[in-house]
Amino acid sequence: MKKILIANRGEIAIRVIRTCKKMGIKTVSVYSNTDQDALHVAMADEAYCIGPSNAKDSYLNMNNIITAAEMTGADAIHPGYGFLAENSNFARRCAENNIIFIGPTPETIDAMGDKAEARKTMVKAGVPVIPGSKDVIPTIEEARQKAHDIGAPLVIKAVAGGGGKGMRIVRDLENFDNLFHSAKNEALNAFGDDRVYIEKFIRTARHIEVQVIGDGHGDAVHLYDRDCSVQRNNQKLIEEAPAVIVPQDVKDRMTLDAVNAAKNINYAGAGTLEFLYVEETGEYYFLEMNTRIQVEHTVTEMVTGIDIVEQQIKVALFDTFELTQDDIQVTGFALECRINAEDPDHGFRPSPGKVEQLFLPSGPGVRIDTFLYQKYMISPFYDSMIAKVITFDNTREGAINRMKLALDEMVIGQFKTNLLYQYRILQHPRYMNNLIDIKFLEKNYFLEG
Amino acid sequence: MKKILIANRGEIAIRVIRTCKKMGIKTVSVYSNTDQDALHVAMADEAYCIGPSNAKDSYLNMNNIITAAEMTGADAIHPGYGFLAENSNFARRCAENNIIFIGPTPETIDAMGDKAEARKTMVKAGVPVIPGSKDVIPTIEEARQKAHDIGAPLVIKAVAGGGGKGMRIVRDLENFDNLFHSAKNEALNAFGDDRVYIEKFIRTARHIEVQVIGDGHGDAVHLYDRDCSVQRNNQKLIEEAPAVIVPQDVKDRMTLDAVNAAKNINYAGAGTLEFLYVEETGEYYFLEMNTRIQVEHTVTEMVTGIDIVEQQIKVALFDTFELTQDDIQVTGFALECRINAEDPDHGFRPSPGKVEQLFLPSGPGVRIDTFLYQKYMISPFYDSMIAKVITFDNTREGAINRMKLALDEMVIGQFKTNLLYQYRILQHPRYMNNLIDIKFLEKNYFLEG
Repeated sequence: MKKILIANRGEIAIRVIRTCKKMGIKTVSVYSNTDQDALHVAMADEAYCIGPSNAKDSYLNMNNIITAAEMTGADAIHPGYGFLAENSNFARRCAENNIIFIGPTPETIDAMGDKAEARKTMVKAGVPVIPGSKDVIPTIEEARQKAHDIGAPLVIKAVAGGGGKGMRIVRDLENFDNLFHSAKNEALNAFGDDRVYIEKFIRTARHIEVQVIGDGHGDAVHLYDRDCSVQRNNQKLIEEAPAVIVPQDVKDRMTLDAVNAAKNINYAGAGTLEFLYVEETGEYYFLEMNTRIQVEHTVTEMVTGIDIVEQQIKVALFDTFELTQDDIQVTGFALECRINAEDPDHGFRPSPGKVEQLFLPSGPGVRIDTFLYQKYMISPFYDSMIAKVITFDNTREGAINRMKLALDEMVIGQFKTNLLYQYRILQHPRYMNNLIDIKFLEKNYFLEG
Repeated sequence: MKKILIANRGEIAIRVIRTCKKMGIKTVSVYSNTDQDALHVAMADEAYCIGPSNAKDSYLNMNNIITAAEMTGADAIHPGYGFLAENSNFARRCAENNIIFIGPTPETIDAMGDKAEARKTMVKAGVPVIPGSKDVIPTIEEARQKAHDIGAPLVIKAVAGGGGKGMRIVRDLENFDNLFHSAKNEALNAFGDDRVYIEKFIRTARHIEVQVIGDGHGDAVHLYDRDCSVQRNNQKLIEEAPAVIVPQDVKDRMTLDAVNAAKNINYAGAGTLEFLYVEETGEYYFLEMNTRIQVEHTVTEMVTGIDIVEQQIKVALFDTFELTQDDIQVTGFALECRINAEDPDHGFRPSPGKVEQLFLPSGPGVRIDTFLYQKYMISPFYDSMIAKVITFDNTREGAINRMKLALDEMVIGQFKTNLLYQYRILQHPRYMNNLIDIKFLEKNYFLEG
């Protein structure tokens, strides 16, 4: 019988434990002092304290985690997301101690963690990236050539820039020379540094991502797409699957690109390629690859029926890859709302506290991933996300209506959460009509408070 | 905006309310004195008391329910299951008062409620029924002919019979004459009445059913099959979808038969054709048709992604039928365990009480339909079913493992439930290996206590 140590806490630790139990795999939880009464501790077959409340001393404490894995005879470690999930040193430490790290190789983690390296890898795999680069363009001749290559609209940005100083948007290449010179002048005046670079201008875009799973030997499949455009300070708040806004032919290319990239790097396990998608032009550009399970993997599970954690474990622990692209179908529509213990009326500051009241929605088309229980004390030490509410229906409208109902049913008290804030987003005509982009929340400050 | 009154209580009332809310339909709950603090009352837009605790004075009180519907201007009444759901007089009363009854016509309810009439209707539609009948066979010549028509194995039963007296199983027609005479003799000696009848002998069988939805104008689809063989005293305890034990060619015929029957009677809304399926021969026989939503509709929803309550409402309220057979696919596997407030250690007697502790399982592949909340007082007046736990996975084994985990996570206290009893069934090798029939629980008394 195999045994997995989960080097994480909260809902993702429970998520992994549940799939381990389904698969007949023993589980080991680790926890900080603060978390001794946490649900992931109660649900595992064994649990060990790995240090004080501060994450750096416990959930980021490689020595203690590796020791716990050795002590308990764990065959593998599942890192979840966050903490050590994208730490290649940790993956190496696991390997050195003959413990399977449930994720890609340390080399893949490194390659995808380095933005320039990742960009190069994607270009090699034929995946589109944002044209231009941070390379400084010294002369007007080189700049003209670069501008011509990228095409309008493009943006000239000051290397030392900020606040829009030394920035010029070029919508017509005829004006390029003038704007180039004025950008350099402004940059010099503002920062004492006239160096600039040129990049394709993306006025507005959606965050579209593709879930991939690879076998580590060159085979890979995609589990279709997600739309995660509803973000606050680059923090996703609502995620959807599939991305209904993207036309089928674009999706076909995007998912094929993602699979090709995963195959090219012999990707092992679950990963996500994130793209910026520009509705007006139908073009998309690689942003980054997350080499771990993501918070929003749930919506893909709802529409494909595939347990992504199970597939991670099968690849890592059993070297088994049972997915074939033709068998993976999307049915219906799912969305996820992240419920955070934070106060939208006061700058979204974290608001930990005791769960005095708890009523979780349930019924058809509703899934809850949470670590809450009645009388649980939410700790101020960790991420403020306390629950994920996922709803499913045949249509986007139906799934949104189910979500509104679910949030309406949900009771978590007595402390501040973003429940009502999420509800307001769902009710916003632009959200309902799917007329949003990644700046949607920034442009709609009135949603706050 | 439309308005629906739900003439029911408990989980099914909440089930209907949730879909109404998803569809933007207003809801009216009705309740007995006992149920004033019930969740279906809290969740509806309006709620009205319709009488004392005894169901006959409240949930079966047609006058009060019709009055509540008229007072609130409800366009339709959803009867749920049980109570008035298969009462044709109630359906007629609705029609007389210009209220839509969400279900088939009173004539259909009557026809399917009468076993002999239902049997005739099915024979006409080409659906197989159990060969033989309760018609008395007076002479040996007629009996021989009948036996020949039915074929072995068959059973001769005394009209006045009971306890196996006057009963003979005929496995070889060569012995028929002898057994016929000895049965008559025994019957005469035991009951002073030698009348007997002949029927196909079904030693053991599984309960397989097909979910259908009709538009009321002759079109209908099926939503595939369920296996509900785990029963105690004819009470279903565990239901599965699809019925993996039935070979595909048999399923094809069975589902086609079910659809043809529904089309033949211009069936309106959701209904279920129940069959006895004999594994040894691959034959199946119509048992009865339920002209309402069933407790176990949930497992079909999980594997088809179709909201059956929504389809009921669309047919009844909007005369809309959006299902086409080709679009309905089965993905994965789902099962449901009925959780009852009853004491398996004391003859399964009902055990109402206050819900002092409540922890409901959640996460991937788990759906809970319940009306419980912390501090809720379970009433002794109604059915003892307090929750339905439904799990989904790609395989039967995976869904069963998820169910074991879910039941393990579930906490409902402090009163007796059948949680552990259900867990024992799931763990039984015959259940795990799907080697069961409708007598499985009777043959395994040790499961009790």
